[in-house]
Amino acid sequence: MKWYEDILTDEDIIISSRVRLARNIRKYPFAVKMNKNQAEAVLNDIKDSVLNERTPLGSRFKFYNMAETEENLKLDLMARHLISPDLVKTKRESGALVMDDESISIMINEEDHIRIQTFAAGDNIEKAYDLADKIDNIMEETLDYAFDEKYGFITSCPTNFGTGLRVSYMMHLPCLERTGNIKQIINAVSKYGITVRGIYGEGTEASGSIYQISNQVTLGKSEKETLELLKNVGNIVKEQEMKMREALIVKDRIAFADRIYRSYGILVNAKRISASEAMDCLSDVRLGYISGVLEKKRPLFPINSIIISSQPAVLQMRAGSKLSPEKRDAMRAAYINKMFEN
Amino acid sequence: MKWYEDILTDEDIIISSRVRLARNIRKYPFAVKMNKNQAEAVLNDIKDSVLNERTPLGSRFKFYNMAETEENLKLDLMARHLISPDLVKTKRESGALVMDDESISIMINEEDHIRIQTFAAGDNIEKAYDLADKIDNIMEETLDYAFDEKYGFITSCPTNFGTGLRVSYMMHLPCLERTGNIKQIINAVSKYGITVRGIYGEGTEASGSIYQISNQVTLGKSEKETLELLKNVGNIVKEQEMKMREALIVKDRIAFADRIYRSYGILVNAKRISASEAMDCLSDVRLGYISGVLEKKRPLFPINSIIISSQPAVLQMRAGSKLSPEKRDAMRAAYINKMFEN
Repeated sequence: MKWYEDILTDEDIIISSRVRLARNIRKYPFAVKMNKNQAEAVLNDIKDSVLNERTPLGSRFKFYNMAETEENLKLDLMARHLISPDLVKTKRESGALVMDDESISIMINEEDHIRIQTFAAGDNIEKAYDLADKIDNIMEETLDYAFDEKYGFITSCPTNFGTGLRVSYMMHLPCLERTGNIKQIINAVSKYGITVRGIYGEGTEASGSIYQISNQVTLGKSEKETLELLKNVGNIVKEQEMKMREALIVKDRIAFADRIYRSYGILVNAKRISASEAMDCLSDVRLGYISGVLEKKRPLFPINSIIISSQPAVLQMRAGSKLSPEKRDAMRAAYINKMFEN
Repeated sequence: MKWYEDILTDEDIIISSRVRLARNIRKYPFAVKMNKNQAEAVLNDIKDSVLNERTPLGSRFKFYNMAETEENLKLDLMARHLISPDLVKTKRESGALVMDDESISIMINEEDHIRIQTFAAGDNIEKAYDLADKIDNIMEETLDYAFDEKYGFITSCPTNFGTGLRVSYMMHLPCLERTGNIKQIINAVSKYGITVRGIYGEGTEASGSIYQISNQVTLGKSEKETLELLKNVGNIVKEQEMKMREALIVKDRIAFADRIYRSYGILVNAKRISASEAMDCLSDVRLGYISGVLEKKRPLFPINSIIISSQPAVLQMRAGSKLSPEKRDAMRAAYINKMFEN
């Protein structure tokens, strides 16, 4: 089972918890300044450090060399949040180590030599942090990290100096979005050093009302403080979403239900559906289940998992051949129909 | 069972067959020229002629005196095609005799003293004509019709002179409408003396792609010739609709199915639906069943019956009180959801 197939991803406004650690190896220049040989050496050092027999975890990772990975597969990995848009684009010698349940992914030679990413379903930031910490410790056994007594971990971009830690919640905020209050929220949380981004991180749009909420500051704050900050702010945002939901229901319960049920009807019945319409409908239906308004059978997989599987790149991978947008829309519809049939 | 609850109304492009006979009583002036006493005398003569013990049919009729019928009930009768928009509006002493299964309705003092209307499910114009002929004969036993050897039956408007017969098909023409070919059809059939009108007759719009196709000429054509003409033209129109349907399916089968299934999803799930959206969706779903594209359980009643029951006036009657449009839309949705649940 992949981490996003956990039913927890469907039970709360906080869909998932994520942790990212930025690390660099002392003896090499930063990724942007490396030559080809150095980049390859970094790749090999990190591979060796993870894919070893020292720990039972090593055997659960799969390595992808980006130069040898075809475009479709890269986009598929990106859709599943395992690599970043930047890693898809870079010409640099780079790669990724992905754990079987997709709860850990280690990007190599992205902005930093090492980017550890961990994922946990629901409001579970400690679990994600423990995973990241564990793999960080394993790597530290064989790698000499760039570390400074004053600044902490040294990273390619100074904004990651210190802990190199970014913690984030993927949050489903349909009611804050629908009422327009999301703008105020984004503004308010920024004062606490928290940013709100779209579903695929920096510079991407929110889709299906899913927002990524994460810390901006890594210097001068301990790991524990950073986790606490995210939890506090995340839960304030969650309460605001719940308030807006109540307000919408009180204002016109039937209109609220009508939209949710219609979206359900589309997902169950459409024979062709675009990614964007699917995201919107899945968002409505997710809200329907959480609010208790939708009294219909739940789909076979959590909606979060269906969202990931409905991404163009993932469908492309599954088809194994280049699909026209129309065929992709038909394939997406068939897949979603089936998920809801169960 | 009402005639429109017959499953036949859902099986063909020709939803139903209708016959109308216009008659007047010789000794009274035409309806528009009568005084109150004369109008009342006509009402009583016709009531006596139908509601008698001479035939078993008499006891199956119910009489509505328009002056004593409340507005909501009038609109409800109109929605079920039992009285015309004109009879709802007129200040004249007027009324209607309606048979229990609603297959015969006799309007009194509408444009003519007597307007016999009969209905049969599907392509069944003979059955409708036989019904009209039967009730016409019963009435003729006691009433002296205005009849001229040269002109035939004399009617208020000379366009009905002769047989006073109007035969019509209610046809479901979604594909001719969608492709825009309906305009050519209307133009072509007019050359044969056939008119195409909306669902509630003269001057009304087509709704749910339902068209009323009927003869224009009543003078110089026998009843048999009029029936033959309608059958011939009706079946040509039907073939054109089938050709357009095939063309749409061949062009893009998935798009064809997608629209039908989405409409099905809306009817099953919406919690609020306007009359116009309901008509459009019911039309799509009807097309889905007829074409074999929609592989879902059929609703509890024929779609034609659901269309009639979803009219604002019918919902109003069922609620027994004045409803806001929003409440009506919610009530319509609940009714349609239930019909499809079965």
